[in-house]
Amino acid sequence: VAAHVQLMRALRVYLAGPDVFLPDPHSLAAAKKRRCAAYGFMGVSPVDNEIDLSALSKRDAGLRISAANEDMIRSCQLLIANLTPFRSPSADVGTAYELGFARAVGLPVFGYTNVAGTLLDRMRRQGGVHVRTRASGQLEDMDHMVIEDFDLTDNLMLVGAVCSSGTEVVVTPTPAGCRFTNLAGFETCLQLAARQLGVQSS
Amino acid sequence: VAAHVQLMRALRVYLAGPDVFLPDPHSLAAAKKRRCAAYGFMGVSPVDNEIDLSALSKRDAGLRISAANEDMIRSCQLLIANLTPFRSPSADVGTAYELGFARAVGLPVFGYTNVAGTLLDRMRRQGGVHVRTRASGQLEDMDHMVIEDFDLTDNLMLVGAVCSSGTEVVVTPTPAGCRFTNLAGFETCLQLAARQLGVQSS
Repeated sequence: VAAHVQLMRALRVYLAGPDVFLPDPHSLAAAKKRRCAAYGFMGVSPVDNEIDLSALSKRDAGLRISAANEDMIRSCQLLIANLTPFRSPSADVGTAYELGFARAVGLPVFGYTNVAGTLLDRMRRQGGVHVRTRASGQLEDMDHMVIEDFDLTDNLMLVGAVCSSGTEVVVTPTPAGCRFTNLAGFETCLQLAARQLGVQSS
Repeated sequence: VAAHVQLMRALRVYLAGPDVFLPDPHSLAAAKKRRCAAYGFMGVSPVDNEIDLSALSKRDAGLRISAANEDMIRSCQLLIANLTPFRSPSADVGTAYELGFARAVGLPVFGYTNVAGTLLDRMRRQGGVHVRTRASGQLEDMDHMVIEDFDLTDNLMLVGAVCSSGTEVVVTPTPAGCRFTNLAGFETCLQLAARQLGVQSS
């Protein structure tokens, strides 16, 4: 009976992304969880962490949340990352950290972005960045730092993680106003994960 | 004899950072390796990867490098991350990914940044970002996304990783022109690592 119950338990999906910084992170987490349930998964969000931070300094509160998020990733069986660029031409660094963490502990990872183009495309479009070509042919930014030119949607470590897990980063061009809330790409990730992991929709 | 040789072998340090994007990444890697050797460690850099990329598409080359870097991290016993902000108020996303990866496989991680201040300080200083206070007291950016206010030098996942490993992010305010090459903070990380791991300077 125990084995049967185990088999029936939905796989836990860690919901990584800058979603936690939204004005109402709980409603987006709830929307993601409803979609997870429809595909036979259980969504788990860092906003679910119930930690009493009241007696802690700001710094200790931040560190406590960090440890709780790591524990939460370890409690999951897969991760879906919102890789939409955040305050930069690239994904949120906290999300990048969690993606690497999940991959190293052996979780299959999936990713989506709601901004089109390669990292290089976005550098070219971004004000203040003057993409230049070196004598070597390499491209560089205003600080003479190389701009990756691998035809990838973001830094090669992030895209590599998703591709090594067996899928592609799902790209859904989205107007700026709903860039962090459009869940079409997230839903595609759930479909890809369900197919890859053999999970039946409910 | 084998056990003795094992004991004598220097611990391998993965050198994570946007250093790989410098105009001459090999000379900075060499400088870091010399310092590693002086503290009894062996520095290992992603620029050391010898992969024949000539027959590969840009995309496949990027993915091959990603896999090689993950293998390299797994071959190391600790990681020192250059967390200096890169094209954003935060660290490089590839470095953030590698920091999470290393932490999850159990490596002690150390970090330094050559830019002073908390993430919030940098957001306030950055042109185009209008830090606002919500009715709730939370701070938000121009996209209404929360700005973390945890008195930490960067996103709580990154700082949490370093603190959970037993040290602090080493901060060395540095002029913009040598922000990515100043190794004072890197050297302090080596000192902290040597003390924590009981490694003798050579």
